[in-house]
Amino acid sequence: MTDLQQFREFRERMNERILAQENLDIRRFFALDSRVYENGALPTRTKELLGLVASLVLRCDDCITYHITRCAEEGVGDDEMFECFSVGLVVGGSIVIPHLRRAVDTLDRLRAGQ
Amino acid sequence: MTDLQQFREFRERMNERILAQENLDIRRFFALDSRVYENGALPTRTKELLGLVASLVLRCDDCITYHITRCAEEGVGDDEMFECFSVGLVVGGSIVIPHLRRAVDTLDRLRAGQ
Amino acid sequence: MTDLQQFREFRERMNERILAQENLDIRRFFALDSRVYENGALPTRTKELLGLVASLVLRCDDCITYHITRCAEEGVGDDEMFECFSVGLVVGGSIVIPHLRRAVDTLDRLRAGQ
Amino acid sequence: MTDLQQFREFRERMNERILAQENLDIRRFFALDSRVYENGALPTRTKELLGLVASLVLRCDDCITYHITRCAEEGVGDDEMFECFSVGLVVGGSIVIPHLRRAVDTLDRLRAGQ
Amino acid sequence: MTDLQQFREFRERMNERILAQENLDIRRFFALDSRVYENGALPTRTKELLGLVASLVLRCDDCITYHITRCAEEGVGDDEMFECFSVGLVVGGSIVIPHLRRAVDTLDRLRAGQ
Amino acid sequence: MTDLQQFREFRERMNERILAQENLDIRRFFALDSRVYENGALPTRTKELLGLVASLVLRCDDCITYHITRCAEEGVGDDEMFECFSVGLVVGGSIVIPHLRRAVDTLDRLRAGQ
Repeated sequence: MTDLQQFREFRERMNERILAQENLDIRRFFALDSRVYENGALPTRTKELLGLVASLVLRCDDCITYHITRCAEEGVGDDEMFECFSVGLVVGGSIVIPHLRRAVDTLDRLRAGQ
Repeated sequence: MTDLQQFREFRERMNERILAQENLDIRRFFALDSRVYENGALPTRTKELLGLVASLVLRCDDCITYHITRCAEEGVGDDEMFECFSVGLVVGGSIVIPHLRRAVDTLDRLRAGQ
Repeated sequence: MTDLQQFREFRERMNERILAQENLDIRRFFALDSRVYENGALPTRTKELLGLVASLVLRCDDCITYHITRCAEEGVGDDEMFECFSVGLVVGGSIVIPHLRRAVDTLDRLRAGQ
Repeated sequence: MTDLQQFREFRERMNERILAQENLDIRRFFALDSRVYENGALPTRTKELLGLVASLVLRCDDCITYHITRCAEEGVGDDEMFECFSVGLVVGGSIVIPHLRRAVDTLDRLRAGQ
Repeated sequence: MTDLQQFREFRERMNERILAQENLDIRRFFALDSRVYENGALPTRTKELLGLVASLVLRCDDCITYHITRCAEEGVGDDEMFECFSVGLVVGGSIVIPHLRRAVDTLDRLRAGQ
Repeated sequence: MTDLQQFREFRERMNERILAQENLDIRRFFALDSRVYENGALPTRTKELLGLVASLVLRCDDCITYHITRCAEEGVGDDEMFECFSVGLVVGGSIVIPHLRRAVDTLDRLRAGQ
């Protein structure tokens, strides 16, 4: 089992666990977190790039993995992905680099069909 | 050996190692870090919830694990724990979610007796 | 006109302006941001202290001002307020100090009746 | 003189002052900071939206003001701007709200011709 | 009265106010915050540069102003100061630039005798 | 194979992979990230300490590991290293402690010849 599969399974299992809890505010936040990337004045594709760069500068590996996966599903190419990385790198600085390494590794494994 | 045990053992071993070093400022900081959660105008129980929400919004898994453990020892129930999570989630945003997943997993394993 | 009044007026005016925009996600987030501090398993008083310490460690002056005001309305005393500050200071470090100075100034002016 | 004018004049004056210093690394960083938003696989318009959302979640008012101005120059409409804000708000949480208030105020004044 | 004077007066007045409060943990933290920059294995001069770069990457204007003042008192020259800035800029990214502008303005006014 | 070796191999492999991509901005950033620690008005030794404290307060384990390794190569002793840690701890707060534990573990294993 690959790391990407582990990530997806843990993510799915814990989302179900969290939403099973009777906490309405958390449920509403999760619903909002899905809605905000839907097509609107900006297309989903652009919004997923926004989510990716925001995850990069805030340095959250899981969020980066999620948005790379979604960007790939939306047809974002490698050149576009790396330009999104470059904006995140310049805004966020060298502290972003370890996350960039893992992001590119994730992207390569995703393209390799995992 | 569970992850929670590994966390506790590494934490205890490295705390001893760090305090064995002749650095008075670090020792004083560690002492202060214990004192600040003691009963005062606010009870320890409330202060541990403060420590938990601060750890959530700053997104430190080890700190979250520590304060969940301490909150559980202080008798904080699941409903209260999740409301603390919901405040941290709304203040800190979706970037907190991967830490929330691990926090709930930690809480469940703690309740299961690890 | 005092700074606290300026803060309140700008806050109220811009909240109205933002909610007047036809953006459902932002409206929902604002609604959730109110709901999360309501009485539940944890009382509003405790939740406002959670909001205060989260604002301190994330170093947002406006958020600190808002939650100090709300804590004061909930009857939080100065000793309790300072213990909340001390947790935020130890968790967040000396980088919090400039915000602590402004927080105490805000608290003093609030107690003086502004 | 408006705040936006003050911002622009201070920004321009200090950029000149900084680049006049004989520090090659800072000069190179400033050059890179311009280059990264140029047209490439992603158009400048999208990159400026990336810069805006990154500035929002990192909560830097000056950066937000700069990228709102650039987005407006690139023809980004209010609906698009607010959807970019909504992504930043959901990713970054309620701690972003004070910066969102100032961002919308800046946008309104920019649209009003300042 | 200059901004630097205002900063110093507010800083001194609020430090006195905070230390007058009967909160032992906050007093201890303030004492530790002074001690940690004292001569040791590393000289105060180096430690103040450490404090400056930490303040830059955490983007706290007041902390930057304080450590620039202290570095200047320790005889740190402009070339050294700018190299410290360049490390902070590369580590922290373009989000540091607005703080760098204010830092250089502070340094120039400090050198001009304010 | 030790963790330090794994870190070095992944770091080297991914740096090569990233620089092989045709993205000039990322390449320039990586070049700048090397240059900024070179001898200048401040010696490399001091600059690596600056990089270390910046990595500590921004809480990036990989960056901490890298700069500890570089500091050790520059002849920084344990007492100096711990004083750098103490500045990072006081500036960044108790949220830094989990990273400090891993930093000291890394330092000990590095001194042990890994």
